[in-house]
Amino acid sequence: MASICPCCHKGSFYVKNPHLDLMDEDILYHLDLGTKTHNLPAMFGDIKFVCVGGSPNRMKAFAQFMHKELGLEGDGKDIKDICAGTDRYSMYKVGPVLSISHGMGVPSISIMLHELIKLLHHAKCCDVTIIRIGTSGGLGIEPGSVVITDIAVDSFFKPQFEQVILDNVVVRSTELDRDLAEELLEYSRECKDFPTLLGHTMCTYDFYEGQGRLDGALCSFSHEKKLEYLKRAYNAGVRNIEMESTVFAAMCRLCGLKAAVVCVTLLNRLEGDQIRAPHEVLVEYQQRPQKLISVFIKKRLGLWNAQKLIDNVVV
Amino acid sequence: MASICPCCHKGSFYVKNPHLDLMDEDILYHLDLGTKTHNLPAMFGDIKFVCVGGSPNRMKAFAQFMHKELGLEGDGKDIKDICAGTDRYSMYKVGPVLSISHGMGVPSISIMLHELIKLLHHAKCCDVTIIRIGTSGGLGIEPGSVVITDIAVDSFFKPQFEQVILDNVVVRSTELDRDLAEELLEYSRECKDFPTLLGHTMCTYDFYEGQGRLDGALCSFSHEKKLEYLKRAYNAGVRNIEMESTVFAAMCRLCGLKAAVVCVTLLNRLEGDQIRAPHEVLVEYQQRPQKLISVFIKKRLGLWNAQKLIDNVVV
Repeated sequence: MASICPCCHKGSFYVKNPHLDLMDEDILYHLDLGTKTHNLPAMFGDIKFVCVGGSPNRMKAFAQFMHKELGLEGDGKDIKDICAGTDRYSMYKVGPVLSISHGMGVPSISIMLHELIKLLHHAKCCDVTIIRIGTSGGLGIEPGSVVITDIAVDSFFKPQFEQVILDNVVVRSTELDRDLAEELLEYSRECKDFPTLLGHTMCTYDFYEGQGRLDGALCSFSHEKKLEYLKRAYNAGVRNIEMESTVFAAMCRLCGLKAAVVCVTLLNRLEGDQIRAPHEVLVEYQQRPQKLISVFIKKRLGLWNAQKLIDNVVV
Repeated sequence: MASICPCCHKGSFYVKNPHLDLMDEDILYHLDLGTKTHNLPAMFGDIKFVCVGGSPNRMKAFAQFMHKELGLEGDGKDIKDICAGTDRYSMYKVGPVLSISHGMGVPSISIMLHELIKLLHHAKCCDVTIIRIGTSGGLGIEPGSVVITDIAVDSFFKPQFEQVILDNVVVRSTELDRDLAEELLEYSRECKDFPTLLGHTMCTYDFYEGQGRLDGALCSFSHEKKLEYLKRAYNAGVRNIEMESTVFAAMCRLCGLKAAVVCVTLLNRLEGDQIRAPHEVLVEYQQRPQKLISVFIKKRLGLWNAQKLIDNVVV
């Protein structure tokens, strides 16, 4: 960990764990990768952008979309799942872009992040930006809107994540990179076919009772109590609700990874609980954060063509 | 919900939500099923056993194993994923047995359980037993041992689950069905090729810091502190550690579903953190809870043949 990066001349390779240097081998169990079985620097050393999302199919589609957007050879249809040896997560690499699924909820994304951050460390990656591109429930905004998270908050609207370490509760900040969020908001002007906004994102441990849904197997509150809670969330600045952003923000911040959360909203929770939009509408909604992130990556790589209207992109 | 089951003459169909009766349609979004798009009573009305586990591949293998064990027609190789329209969960039906994946962690299994319990309600199922067959880290027991959970405890060794409802914290009991656990322990005598025991199962929100691992991207404690915590857990009766049992126990209990947790241990956490056993050993370990549950289901269905030694079963 004390080694200096030959590229950016910085000494930090993300992990914050003195025990790792003492290990002869590191098996990244849930990714089916390891330091003795794989040449991680050769496989991943050039990664500059990591995009994560819940669904394996969506992260494969994003990798195929980026393959096309970056003008890489071939049609990208036969892109290989690097984690094919396990069904816990899926991972695809397209040039300097890594696309990984993380399942649903804080524990699921936290396992993936621990192993991903160790992977970036072992591969000696530097200057990496990480973005969660997800789906969410919107609060008081048009369905299909894309929310760039300025800060992730918990169920009590606090910008913090409570991590249990052994049996102690440690409170961690969930602040995200402000400059990165502003940069993404600026680039959203290139995406004229959908609205994008900056707002707080609330992260819950459960989709039903914790998000005030009336349609779970268990529900002990009234329609009025639900609306009162959601309106309080709106007044606290919350514009969307999902299930991973607090631990994502907290871990990336601690490990020095520049991080952003960009989620599309599938419905307006002030108007209902069930996701009723037709399949093809939901598919198009889910492509929206991908379009914005492709603009961002191409701008960062100097590949952006001002004449090209994102409106015309066919994913 | 007030309707009486023609089979068992009981009135309870599992859900505890007065709002559900008022809904014209219920879309089980993460299962890609719904009350208007599917005939749920015809598809699922005969279900008596629901088995759940983290990995989709493992739950498919279990369904294929049960297909063979129940002596159903065909070889079961072409068994179809009922949730093929989504990649969030996988679901297979084999006679009266439903096999479903739930991903990793409390939030992921909780979404699945809400929609599964509503599915059992809509399908008018009755007299259903639900069993989680999973993997775990062992505490002070031989790797490969199978632990039947007597009670699920949290990181503080308390037999409770804290559910956030709107912004209130509600404490729920994590007691499991004692008779079912005893019945499973009795049937484990038929499985002579691996040890099975009854013990407390600790459920954490994270695989690394929360379980005292020294090999995550973040670690702020010493080897000694880790061992001190794990030994305290052992002394409190904990024999294995996983990430879903408390919410599983709490939700099933509230909904009147008889539930058990049966997990194999992949390593002894007092001896290390990394899962280093060879792939084929881990595959065999994961078949152990499946073998025990197949004995249980066959005994319940009156299909158990005393002459047949489970030792000879080839999964």
